[in-house]
Amino acid sequence: MTEFSRSEREVLLQVANAAADAAAVVTLDYFRTTRLKTENKADGHFDPVTCADREAEQAIREVLRQMRPEDGILGEEFGPVQGTSGLTWVLDPIDGTRGFISGTPTWGTLISIRDAAGPILGMIDQPYTGERFVGGFGLAELHRGGKATRIGVRPSPRLGDAILFTTFPEVGSLVEGAAFLELSRQVRLTRYGMDCYAYALLASGNVDLVVEAGLQAYDVQAPIAVIEAAGGIVTDWRGGPAHEGGRIVAAASASLHRAALQLLQLVPDV
Amino acid sequence: MTEFSRSEREVLLQVANAAADAAAVVTLDYFRTTRLKTENKADGHFDPVTCADREAEQAIREVLRQMRPEDGILGEEFGPVQGTSGLTWVLDPIDGTRGFISGTPTWGTLISIRDAAGPILGMIDQPYTGERFVGGFGLAELHRGGKATRIGVRPSPRLGDAILFTTFPEVGSLVEGAAFLELSRQVRLTRYGMDCYAYALLASGNVDLVVEAGLQAYDVQAPIAVIEAAGGIVTDWRGGPAHEGGRIVAAASASLHRAALQLLQLVPDV
Repeated sequence: MTEFSRSEREVLLQVANAAADAAAVVTLDYFRTTRLKTENKADGHFDPVTCADREAEQAIREVLRQMRPEDGILGEEFGPVQGTSGLTWVLDPIDGTRGFISGTPTWGTLISIRDAAGPILGMIDQPYTGERFVGGFGLAELHRGGKATRIGVRPSPRLGDAILFTTFPEVGSLVEGAAFLELSRQVRLTRYGMDCYAYALLASGNVDLVVEAGLQAYDVQAPIAVIEAAGGIVTDWRGGPAHEGGRIVAAASASLHRAALQLLQLVPDV
Repeated sequence: MTEFSRSEREVLLQVANAAADAAAVVTLDYFRTTRLKTENKADGHFDPVTCADREAEQAIREVLRQMRPEDGILGEEFGPVQGTSGLTWVLDPIDGTRGFISGTPTWGTLISIRDAAGPILGMIDQPYTGERFVGGFGLAELHRGGKATRIGVRPSPRLGDAILFTTFPEVGSLVEGAAFLELSRQVRLTRYGMDCYAYALLASGNVDLVVEAGLQAYDVQAPIAVIEAAGGIVTDWRGGPAHEGGRIVAAASASLHRAALQLLQLVPDV
Protein backbone atom coordinates (compact mmCIF):
# COMPACT_ATOMS: atom_id res chain seq x y z
CA MET A 1 0.00 0.00 0.00
CA THR A 2 1.19 3.48 -0.91
CA GLU A 3 2.61 5.58 1.96
CA PHE A 4 1.38 9.16 2.24
CA SER A 5 2.86 12.05 4.16
CA ARG A 6 0.62 14.06 6.43
CA SER A 7 0.40 16.90 3.91
CA GLU A 8 -0.41 14.47 1.07
CA ARG A 9 -3.21 12.99 3.17
CA GLU A 10 -4.53 16.46 3.91
CA VAL A 11 -4.55 17.37 0.22
CA LEU A 12 -6.44 14.20 -0.69
CA LEU A 13 -9.03 14.87 2.03
CA GLN A 14 -9.36 18.47 0.91
CA VAL A 15 -9.94 17.43 -2.72
CA ALA A 16 -12.47 14.77 -1.66
CA ASN A 17 -14.35 17.37 0.39
CA ALA A 18 -14.31 19.85 -2.49
CA ALA A 19 -15.60 17.15 -4.84
CA ALA A 20 -18.42 16.18 -2.44
CA ASP A 21 -19.33 19.85 -1.96
CA ALA A 22 -19.52 20.36 -5.73
CA ALA A 23 -21.73 17.28 -6.15
CA ALA A 24 -24.02 18.36 -3.31
CA VAL A 25 -24.81 21.68 -5.01
CA VAL A 26 -26.13 19.74 -8.01
CA THR A 27 -27.92 16.91 -6.19
CA LEU A 28 -29.72 19.21 -3.72
CA ASP A 29 -30.72 21.52 -6.56
CA TYR A 30 -32.60 18.63 -8.24
CA PHE A 31 -33.70 16.61 -5.17
CA ARG A 32 -37.51 16.47 -4.84
CA THR A 33 -38.10 18.84 -7.77
CA THR A 34 -40.06 18.39 -10.98
CA ARG A 35 -36.95 19.52 -12.90
CA LEU A 36 -35.42 16.11 -12.17
CA LYS A 37 -35.51 14.11 -15.41
CA THR A 38 -35.22 10.33 -15.21
CA GLU A 39 -34.32 7.84 -17.95
CA ASN A 40 -34.24 4.08 -17.83
CA LYS A 41 -30.80 2.80 -18.79
CA ALA A 42 -31.78 -0.90 -18.74
CA ASP A 43 -33.84 -3.18 -20.96
CA GLY A 44 -36.62 -5.20 -19.35
CA HIS A 45 -36.28 -3.72 -15.86
CA PHE A 46 -36.03 -0.26 -14.32
CA ASP A 47 -32.49 1.03 -13.73
CA PRO A 48 -32.85 4.79 -13.57
CA VAL A 49 -30.32 7.49 -14.27
CA THR A 50 -31.13 11.18 -13.91
CA CYS A 51 -29.72 14.50 -15.01
CA ALA A 52 -28.62 14.90 -11.38
CA ASP A 53 -26.41 11.76 -11.55
CA ARG A 54 -24.74 13.02 -14.72
CA GLU A 55 -24.31 16.66 -13.72
CA ALA A 56 -23.07 15.76 -10.23
CA GLU A 57 -20.41 13.47 -11.70
CA GLN A 58 -19.41 16.23 -14.14
CA ALA A 59 -19.07 18.63 -11.19
CA ILE A 60 -16.81 16.17 -9.37
CA ARG A 61 -14.73 15.55 -12.50
CA GLU A 62 -14.27 19.29 -12.96
CA VAL A 63 -12.87 19.57 -9.40
CA LEU A 64 -10.51 16.65 -10.09
CA ARG A 65 -9.44 18.06 -13.48
CA GLN A 66 -8.39 21.26 -11.75
CA MET A 67 -6.95 19.90 -8.50
CA ARG A 68 -5.70 16.38 -9.42
CA PRO A 69 -5.03 16.25 -13.19
CA GLU A 70 -2.46 13.47 -12.70
CA ASP A 71 -4.93 11.01 -11.11
CA GLY A 72 -7.19 8.54 -12.91
CA ILE A 73 -11.01 8.50 -12.65
CA LEU A 74 -13.48 5.62 -12.61
CA GLY A 75 -17.06 6.92 -12.43
CA GLU A 76 -20.49 5.41 -12.97
CA GLU A 77 -21.79 7.80 -15.60
CA PHE A 78 -18.83 8.62 -17.88
CA GLY A 79 -15.80 6.84 -19.33
CA PRO A 80 -12.63 6.14 -17.37
CA VAL A 81 -9.72 8.58 -17.29
CA GLN A 82 -6.22 7.08 -17.21
CA GLY A 83 -3.92 8.77 -14.72
CA THR A 84 -0.15 8.81 -14.23
CA SER A 85 0.04 9.03 -10.43
CA GLY A 86 -1.01 5.49 -9.57
CA LEU A 87 -4.10 6.87 -7.83
CA THR A 88 -7.65 6.60 -9.17
CA TRP A 89 -10.76 8.43 -7.96
CA VAL A 90 -13.73 6.07 -7.87
CA LEU A 91 -17.06 7.89 -8.05
CA ASP A 92 -20.75 7.21 -7.76
CA PRO A 93 -22.41 10.63 -7.93
CA ILE A 94 -25.73 9.24 -6.62
CA ASP A 95 -25.66 5.79 -5.09
CA GLY A 96 -29.32 4.88 -4.66
CA THR A 97 -30.82 6.67 -7.65
CA ARG A 98 -34.10 4.78 -7.05
CA GLY A 99 -34.19 6.29 -3.55
CA PHE A 100 -33.20 9.70 -4.90
CA ILE A 101 -36.09 9.82 -7.38
CA SER A 102 -38.43 8.70 -4.56
CA GLY A 103 -37.35 11.56 -2.29
CA THR A 104 -35.83 9.38 0.46
CA PRO A 105 -32.91 10.97 2.32
CA THR A 106 -30.74 7.83 2.27
CA TRP A 107 -28.98 7.98 -1.11
CA GLY A 108 -25.38 9.14 -1.10
CA THR A 109 -22.54 10.55 -3.14
CA LEU A 110 -19.64 8.08 -3.02
CA ILE A 111 -16.13 9.39 -3.51
CA SER A 112 -13.04 7.30 -2.93
CA ILE A 113 -9.40 7.09 -3.91
CA ARG A 114 -7.66 3.83 -4.67
CA ASP A 115 -4.14 2.70 -5.38
CA ALA A 116 -3.17 -0.64 -6.92
CA ALA A 117 -4.15 -2.50 -3.73
CA GLY A 118 -7.60 -0.97 -3.21
CA PRO A 119 -9.36 2.02 -1.62
CA ILE A 120 -7.35 4.20 0.78
CA LEU A 121 -9.86 6.98 1.48
CA GLY A 122 -13.63 7.04 1.11
CA MET A 123 -16.59 9.31 1.67
CA ILE A 124 -20.33 8.59 1.91
CA ASP A 125 -21.98 11.99 1.62
CA GLN A 126 -25.70 12.57 2.32
CA PRO A 127 -26.19 16.28 1.75
CA TYR A 128 -29.91 16.47 2.59
CA THR A 129 -29.34 15.21 6.15
CA GLY A 130 -26.01 17.04 6.16
CA GLU A 131 -24.01 13.91 6.99
CA ARG A 132 -20.57 13.16 5.55
CA PHE A 133 -19.09 9.82 6.64
CA VAL A 134 -15.34 9.81 6.00
CA GLY A 135 -12.85 6.97 6.45
CA GLY A 136 -9.21 6.46 5.58
CA PHE A 137 -5.66 6.63 6.91
CA GLY A 138 -6.88 4.85 10.05
CA LEU A 139 -9.49 7.45 10.97
CA ALA A 140 -13.30 7.30 10.60
CA GLU A 141 -15.47 10.35 11.23
CA LEU A 142 -18.96 11.72 10.76
CA HIS A 143 -18.98 15.38 9.74
CA ARG A 144 -22.26 17.20 10.38
CA GLY A 145 -23.17 20.78 11.14
CA GLY A 146 -19.53 21.88 11.22
CA LYS A 147 -18.64 19.20 13.79
CA ALA A 148 -16.53 16.07 13.30
CA THR A 149 -17.29 13.02 15.48
CA ARG A 150 -15.17 9.85 15.62
CA ILE A 151 -17.20 6.83 14.52
CA GLY A 152 -16.57 3.13 14.91
CA VAL A 153 -18.34 -0.18 14.57
CA ARG A 154 -20.11 -1.39 17.68
CA PRO A 155 -19.22 -4.40 19.83
CA SER A 156 -20.71 -7.07 17.72
CA PRO A 157 -23.53 -9.25 19.06
CA ARG A 158 -23.89 -12.93 18.17
CA LEU A 159 -25.61 -13.58 14.83
CA GLY A 160 -29.00 -14.17 16.50
CA ASP A 161 -29.03 -10.61 17.90
CA ALA A 162 -27.62 -8.85 14.83
CA ILE A 163 -29.30 -6.22 12.63
CA LEU A 164 -28.88 -7.01 8.92
CA PHE A 165 -29.42 -4.62 6.01
CA THR A 166 -29.71 -4.99 2.25
CA THR A 167 -31.30 -2.80 -0.40
CA PHE A 168 -33.67 -5.05 -2.37
CA PRO A 169 -35.41 -8.13 -0.89
CA GLU A 170 -34.48 -10.05 -4.06
CA VAL A 171 -30.78 -9.22 -3.37
CA GLY A 172 -29.55 -10.69 -6.67
CA SER A 173 -29.96 -13.99 -8.50
CA LEU A 174 -32.33 -16.65 -7.16
CA VAL A 175 -29.55 -18.49 -5.28
CA GLU A 176 -28.14 -15.24 -3.94
CA GLY A 177 -31.62 -14.27 -2.74
CA ALA A 178 -32.15 -17.68 -1.14
CA ALA A 179 -28.85 -17.46 0.76
CA PHE A 180 -29.74 -13.99 1.99
CA LEU A 181 -33.17 -15.20 3.12
CA GLU A 182 -31.56 -18.01 5.11
CA LEU A 183 -29.17 -15.53 6.73
CA SER A 184 -32.05 -13.17 7.50
CA ARG A 185 -33.83 -16.01 9.33
CA GLN A 186 -30.85 -16.28 11.67
CA VAL A 187 -30.59 -12.60 12.67
CA ARG A 188 -32.76 -10.54 14.95
CA LEU A 189 -33.85 -7.89 12.46
CA THR A 190 -33.59 -7.44 8.69
CA ARG A 191 -34.21 -4.07 7.05
CA TYR A 192 -34.28 -2.88 3.44
CA GLY A 193 -34.03 0.13 1.19
CA MET A 194 -31.02 2.14 2.40
CA ASP A 195 -28.42 1.72 -0.39
CA CYS A 196 -24.99 3.08 0.68
CA TYR A 197 -26.51 4.57 3.82
CA ALA A 198 -26.60 1.06 5.31
CA TYR A 199 -22.79 0.91 5.14
CA ALA A 200 -22.60 4.29 6.89
CA LEU A 201 -24.87 2.92 9.63
CA LEU A 202 -22.57 -0.07 10.06
CA ALA A 203 -19.45 2.13 10.21
CA SER A 204 -21.11 4.36 12.81
CA GLY A 205 -22.04 1.48 15.12
CA ASN A 206 -25.79 1.31 14.47
CA VAL A 207 -26.14 -1.98 12.55
CA ASP A 208 -24.08 -5.16 12.37
CA LEU A 209 -24.23 -6.66 8.88
CA VAL A 210 -24.81 -5.47 5.30
CA VAL A 211 -25.08 -8.08 2.56
CA GLU A 212 -25.60 -7.28 -1.12
CA ALA A 213 -24.91 -8.75 -4.55
CA GLY A 214 -24.34 -7.43 -8.05
CA LEU A 215 -22.47 -4.30 -6.95
CA GLN A 216 -19.99 -2.37 -9.05
CA ALA A 217 -16.57 -1.15 -7.91
CA TYR A 218 -17.91 2.41 -7.63
CA ASP A 219 -20.76 1.22 -5.34
CA VAL A 220 -18.46 -0.34 -2.79
CA GLN A 221 -15.01 1.29 -2.65
CA ALA A 222 -16.04 4.29 -0.56
CA PRO A 223 -18.03 2.09 1.87
CA ILE A 224 -15.02 -0.25 2.21
CA ALA A 225 -12.70 2.63 3.10
CA VAL A 226 -15.14 4.03 5.67
CA ILE A 227 -15.98 0.67 7.26
CA GLU A 228 -12.38 -0.54 7.45
CA ALA A 229 -11.29 2.74 9.06
CA ALA A 230 -14.17 2.29 11.54
CA GLY A 231 -12.93 -1.17 12.51
CA GLY A 232 -15.24 -3.34 10.40
CA ILE A 233 -14.63 -5.94 7.70
CA VAL A 234 -15.78 -6.01 4.06
CA THR A 235 -15.17 -8.97 1.75
CA ASP A 236 -16.91 -10.90 -0.99
CA TRP A 237 -19.04 -13.95 -0.07
CA ARG A 238 -15.93 -16.19 -0.11
CA GLY A 239 -13.92 -13.94 2.18
CA GLY A 240 -11.82 -12.46 -0.65
CA PRO A 241 -11.29 -8.80 -1.65
CA ALA A 242 -14.52 -6.93 -2.44
CA HIS A 243 -13.29 -3.68 -3.94
CA GLU A 244 -14.07 -4.70 -7.53
CA GLY A 245 -17.74 -5.20 -6.57
CA GLY A 246 -19.89 -8.29 -6.92
CA ARG A 247 -21.21 -10.04 -3.80
CA ILE A 248 -20.53 -8.03 -0.65
CA VAL A 249 -20.62 -8.88 3.04
CA ALA A 250 -19.78 -6.10 5.50
CA ALA A 251 -19.59 -6.94 9.20
CA ALA A 252 -18.92 -5.15 12.46
CA SER A 253 -16.61 -7.90 13.72
CA ALA A 254 -14.56 -10.90 12.67
CA SER A 255 -16.86 -13.33 14.49
CA LEU A 256 -20.01 -11.97 12.85
CA HIS A 257 -18.25 -11.94 9.48
CA ARG A 258 -17.27 -15.59 9.97
CA ALA A 259 -20.84 -16.54 10.95
CA ALA A 260 -22.28 -14.85 7.83
CA LEU A 261 -19.63 -16.37 5.53
CA GLN A 262 -20.48 -19.89 6.76
CA LEU A 263 -23.78 -19.52 4.95
CA LEU A 264 -22.90 -17.19 2.09
CA GLN A 265 -19.81 -19.08 0.92
CA LEU A 266 -22.03 -22.05 0.01
CA VAL A 267 -23.55 -20.08 -2.88
CA PRO A 268 -22.01 -21.30 -6.16
CA ASP A 269 -20.33 -18.81 -8.50
CA VAL A 270 -22.51 -17.75 -11.42
CA MET B 1 -67.24 16.82 11.13
CA THR B 2 -66.61 19.32 13.91
CA GLU B 3 -66.30 22.96 12.85
CA PHE B 4 -63.40 24.94 14.30
CA SER B 5 -62.89 28.68 14.48
CA ARG B 6 -59.60 30.11 13.29
CA SER B 7 -58.38 30.59 16.86
CA GLU B 8 -59.39 27.03 17.82
CA ARG B 9 -57.42 25.71 14.84
CA GLU B 10 -54.42 27.79 15.85
CA VAL B 11 -54.54 26.44 19.40
CA LEU B 12 -54.69 22.82 18.17
CA LEU B 13 -51.71 23.43 15.86
CA GLN B 14 -49.78 25.10 18.65
CA VAL B 15 -50.40 22.18 21.02
CA ALA B 16 -49.44 19.64 18.33
CA ASN B 17 -46.20 21.54 17.70
CA ALA B 18 -45.44 21.73 21.43
CA ALA B 19 -46.09 17.98 21.74
CA ALA B 20 -43.82 17.17 18.78
CA ASP B 21 -41.11 19.46 20.18
CA ALA B 22 -41.29 17.70 23.56
CA ALA B 23 -41.05 14.26 21.93
CA ALA B 24 -38.09 15.36 19.77
CA VAL B 25 -36.03 16.31 22.81
CA VAL B 26 -36.39 12.72 24.06
CA THR B 27 -35.99 10.86 20.77
CA LEU B 28 -32.93 12.82 19.64
CA ASP B 29 -31.36 12.37 23.06
CA TYR B 30 -31.50 8.57 22.64
CA PHE B 31 -31.11 8.25 18.84
CA ARG B 32 -27.90 6.40 17.88
CA THR B 33 -26.66 6.17 21.47
CA THR B 34 -25.74 3.17 23.60
CA ARG B 35 -28.09 4.50 26.30
CA LEU B 36 -31.01 3.34 24.13
CA LYS B 37 -32.48 0.23 25.76
CA THR B 38 -34.60 -2.09 23.64
CA GLU B 39 -37.07 -4.78 24.74
CA ASN B 40 -39.02 -7.24 22.66
CA LYS B 41 -42.75 -6.87 23.34
CA ALA B 42 -43.79 -9.84 21.17
CA ASP B 43 -43.55 -13.62 21.50
CA GLY B 44 -41.96 -15.54 18.64
CA HIS B 45 -40.95 -12.53 16.57
CA PHE B 46 -39.15 -9.22 17.15
CA ASP B 47 -41.41 -6.24 17.90
CA PRO B 48 -39.16 -3.79 19.70
CA VAL B 49 -40.06 -1.05 22.12
CA THR B 50 -37.44 1.25 23.64
CA CYS B 51 -37.11 3.63 26.54
CA ALA B 52 -37.26 6.39 23.90
CA ASP B 53 -40.75 5.28 22.74
CA ARG B 54 -42.05 5.31 26.32
CA GLU B 55 -40.40 8.53 27.48
CA ALA B 56 -41.34 10.40 24.28
CA GLU B 57 -45.00 9.42 24.74
CA GLN B 58 -44.84 10.51 28.39
CA ALA B 59 -43.42 13.87 27.25
CA ILE B 60 -46.30 14.32 24.80
CA ARG B 61 -48.88 13.29 27.41
CA GLU B 62 -47.46 15.83 29.85
CA VAL B 63 -47.91 18.61 27.25
CA LEU B 64 -51.49 17.47 26.66
CA ARG B 65 -52.25 17.17 30.38
CA GLN B 66 -51.24 20.79 30.82
CA MET B 67 -52.62 22.32 27.61
CA ARG B 68 -55.61 20.08 26.74
CA PRO B 69 -56.86 18.34 29.91
CA GLU B 70 -60.37 18.02 28.42
CA ASP B 71 -59.27 15.92 25.41
CA GLY B 72 -58.89 12.14 25.23
CA ILE B 73 -55.65 10.31 24.41
CA LEU B 74 -54.99 7.12 22.44
CA GLY B 75 -51.27 6.28 22.40
CA GLU B 76 -49.22 3.23 21.50
CA GLU B 77 -47.34 2.80 24.77
CA PHE B 78 -49.79 3.66 27.58
CA GLY B 79 -53.50 3.22 28.33
CA PRO B 80 -56.23 5.39 26.82
CA VAL B 81 -57.43 8.58 28.51
CA GLN B 82 -61.14 9.37 28.20
CA GLY B 83 -61.84 13.01 27.39
CA THR B 84 -64.93 15.21 27.60
CA SER B 85 -64.37 17.47 24.58
CA GLY B 86 -65.16 14.98 21.82
CA LEU B 87 -61.54 15.27 20.61
CA THR B 88 -58.89 12.58 21.02
CA TRP B 89 -55.13 12.88 20.49
CA VAL B 90 -53.80 9.82 18.68
CA LEU B 91 -50.08 9.27 19.28
CA ASP B 92 -47.25 7.09 18.08
CA PRO B 93 -44.14 8.47 19.76
CA ILE B 94 -41.83 6.53 17.41
CA ASP B 95 -43.38 5.03 14.31
CA GLY B 96 -40.68 2.79 12.90
CA THR B 97 -38.97 1.66 16.09
CA ARG B 98 -37.07 -0.98 14.07
CA GLY B 99 -35.66 1.85 11.94
CA PHE B 100 -34.98 3.96 15.04
CA ILE B 101 -32.87 1.26 16.70
CA SER B 102 -31.01 0.81 13.38
CA GLY B 103 -30.11 4.50 13.17
CA THR B 104 -32.07 5.23 9.97
CA PRO B 105 -33.43 8.80 9.73
CA THR B 106 -36.87 7.75 8.45
CA TRP B 107 -38.83 6.94 11.63
CA GLY B 108 -41.28 9.57 12.82
CA THR B 109 -43.29 10.87 15.72
CA LEU B 110 -46.97 10.74 14.77
CA ILE B 111 -49.37 13.14 16.42
CA SER B 112 -52.95 13.60 15.33
CA ILE B 113 -56.30 14.80 16.62
CA ARG B 114 -59.54 13.07 15.79
CA ASP B 115 -63.21 13.71 16.36
CA ALA B 116 -65.99 11.11 16.02
CA ALA B 117 -65.60 11.05 12.22
CA GLY B 118 -61.81 10.61 12.05
CA PRO B 119 -58.56 12.59 12.02
CA ILE B 120 -58.75 16.35 11.50
CA LEU B 121 -55.11 17.34 11.98
CA GLY B 122 -51.94 15.27 11.71
CA MET B 123 -48.19 15.61 12.00
CA ILE B 124 -45.36 13.35 10.82
CA ASP B 125 -42.28 14.68 12.60
CA GLN B 126 -38.72 13.55 11.73
CA PRO B 127 -36.51 15.51 14.09
CA TYR B 128 -33.12 14.19 12.90
CA THR B 129 -33.70 15.51 9.36
CA GLY B 130 -35.57 18.45 10.86
CA GLU B 131 -38.72 17.79 8.84
CA ARG B 132 -42.24 18.26 10.17
CA PHE B 133 -45.02 17.32 7.74
CA VAL B 134 -48.31 18.87 8.86
CA GLY B 135 -51.78 18.45 7.38
CA GLY B 136 -55.27 19.50 8.40
CA PHE B 137 -57.97 22.13 7.96
CA GLY B 138 -57.34 21.97 4.19
CA LEU B 139 -53.65 22.88 4.39
CA ALA B 140 -50.57 20.64 4.02
CA GLU B 141 -47.08 21.96 4.77
CA LEU B 142 -43.51 20.86 5.34
CA HIS B 143 -41.79 22.80 8.12
CA ARG B 144 -38.00 22.70 8.03
CA GLY B 145 -35.29 25.07 9.14
CA GLY B 146 -37.80 27.70 10.25
CA LYS B 147 -39.50 27.71 6.82
CA ALA B 148 -42.95 26.40 5.90
CA THR B 149 -43.51 25.10 2.36
CA ARG B 150 -46.87 24.09 0.89
CA ILE B 151 -46.85 20.43 -0.12
CA GLY B 152 -49.21 18.44 -2.30
CA VAL B 153 -49.45 15.10 -4.05
CA ARG B 154 -48.06 15.02 -7.57
CA PRO B 155 -50.00 14.56 -10.80
CA SER B 156 -50.47 10.88 -10.71
CA PRO B 157 -48.95 8.66 -13.43
CA ARG B 158 -50.65 5.50 -14.70
CA LEU B 159 -50.06 2.43 -12.53
CA GLY B 160 -47.23 1.20 -14.78
CA ASP B 161 -45.18 4.34 -14.06
CA ALA B 162 -45.96 4.62 -10.34
CA ILE B 163 -43.55 4.40 -7.39
CA LEU B 164 -44.92 2.10 -4.65
CA PHE B 165 -43.71 1.91 -1.04
CA THR B 166 -44.25 -0.46 1.83
CA THR B 167 -42.20 -1.19 4.96
CA PHE B 168 -41.67 -4.96 5.04
CA PRO B 169 -41.51 -7.15 1.90
CA GLU B 170 -43.80 -9.67 3.67
CA VAL B 171 -46.38 -6.86 4.11
CA GLY B 172 -48.70 -8.97 6.29
CA SER B 173 -50.34 -12.40 6.00
CA LEU B 174 -49.46 -14.70 3.09
CA VAL B 175 -52.46 -13.55 1.01
CA GLU B 176 -51.77 -9.91 1.82
CA GLY B 177 -48.14 -10.38 0.79
CA ALA B 178 -49.17 -12.13 -2.44
CA ALA B 179 -51.55 -9.29 -3.37
CA PHE B 180 -48.83 -6.73 -2.70
CA LEU B 181 -46.37 -8.70 -4.83
CA GLU B 182 -48.83 -8.75 -7.72
CA LEU B 183 -49.34 -4.99 -7.38
CA SER B 184 -45.57 -4.44 -7.22
CA ARG B 185 -45.23 -6.30 -10.54
CA GLN B 186 -47.49 -3.73 -12.17
CA VAL B 187 -45.70 -0.57 -11.01
CA ARG B 188 -42.44 0.93 -12.16
CA LEU B 189 -40.57 0.85 -8.87
CA THR B 190 -41.18 -0.70 -5.43
CA ARG B 191 -39.21 0.41 -2.39
CA TYR B 192 -39.11 -0.73 1.23
CA GLY B 193 -38.16 0.26 4.76
CA MET B 194 -39.50 3.79 5.29
CA ASP B 195 -42.36 3.35 7.83
CA CYS B 196 -44.39 6.59 8.19
CA TYR B 197 -41.85 8.49 6.12
CA ALA B 198 -43.32 6.84 3.01
CA TYR B 199 -46.65 8.60 3.67
CA ALA B 200 -44.80 11.91 4.03
CA LEU B 201 -43.14 11.28 0.66
CA LEU B 202 -46.55 10.63 -0.91
CA ALA B 203 -48.04 13.80 0.62
CA SER B 204 -45.09 15.84 -0.63
CA GLY B 205 -45.38 14.64 -4.22
CA ASN B 206 -42.42 12.27 -4.37
CA VAL B 207 -44.10 8.85 -4.57
CA ASP B 208 -47.47 7.63 -5.77
CA LEU B 209 -48.67 4.68 -3.68
CA VAL B 210 -48.15 3.31 -0.16
CA VAL B 211 -49.68 -0.06 0.69
CA GLU B 212 -49.44 -1.72 4.09
CA ALA B 213 -51.32 -4.19 6.28
CA GLY B 214 -51.68 -4.85 10.00
CA LEU B 215 -51.50 -1.19 11.03
CA GLN B 216 -52.96 0.26 14.21
CA ALA B 217 -55.05 3.43 14.44
CA TYR B 218 -52.07 5.33 15.88
CA ASP B 219 -49.90 4.29 12.88
CA VAL B 220 -52.22 5.75 10.30
CA GLN B 221 -54.29 8.67 11.60
CA ALA B 222 -51.56 11.31 11.27
CA PRO B 223 -50.61 10.08 7.77
CA ILE B 224 -54.29 10.19 6.73
CA ALA B 225 -54.64 13.81 7.88
CA VAL B 226 -51.44 14.87 6.09
CA ILE B 227 -52.19 13.00 2.86
CA GLU B 228 -55.83 14.11 2.63
CA ALA B 229 -54.82 17.75 3.21
CA ALA B 230 -52.22 17.30 0.44
CA GLY B 231 -54.88 16.08 -2.02
CA GLY B 232 -54.35 12.32 -1.76
CA ILE B 233 -56.61 9.43 -0.80
CA VAL B 234 -56.25 6.87 2.01
CA THR B 235 -58.66 3.94 2.47
CA ASP B 236 -58.59 0.29 3.46
CA TRP B 237 -58.18 -2.36 0.73
CA ARG B 238 -61.97 -2.34 0.07
CA GLY B 239 -62.17 1.43 -0.33
CA GLY B 240 -63.65 2.01 3.14
CA PRO B 241 -62.40 4.22 6.01
CA ALA B 242 -58.84 3.44 7.13
CA HIS B 243 -58.49 5.47 10.32
CA GLU B 244 -58.93 2.50 12.64
CA GLY B 245 -55.92 0.81 10.98
CA GLY B 246 -55.71 -2.59 9.29
CA ARG B 247 -54.97 -2.79 5.57
CA ILE B 248 -54.03 0.59 4.12
CA VAL B 249 -53.79 1.91 0.57
CA ALA B 250 -52.70 5.54 0.13
CA ALA B 251 -52.69 7.02 -3.36
CA ALA B 252 -51.82 10.31 -5.02
CA SER B 253 -54.97 10.27 -7.16
CA ALA B 254 -58.40 8.70 -7.55
CA SER B 255 -57.38 6.85 -10.72
CA LEU B 256 -54.30 5.31 -9.14
CA HIS B 257 -56.31 4.44 -6.03
CA ARG B 258 -58.92 2.73 -8.23
CA ALA B 259 -56.23 0.79 -10.10
CA ALA B 260 -54.65 -0.44 -6.86
CA LEU B 261 -58.02 -1.36 -5.32
CA GLN B 262 -58.90 -3.52 -8.33
CA LEU B 263 -56.20 -5.90 -7.15
CA LEU B 264 -56.21 -5.38 -3.39
CA GLN B 265 -59.98 -5.73 -2.94
CA LEU B 266 -59.76 -9.35 -4.10
CA VAL B 267 -57.95 -10.32 -0.89
CA PRO B 268 -60.40 -12.10 1.44
CA ASP B 269 -60.92 -10.79 4.97
CA VAL B 270 -58.99 -12.71 7.60
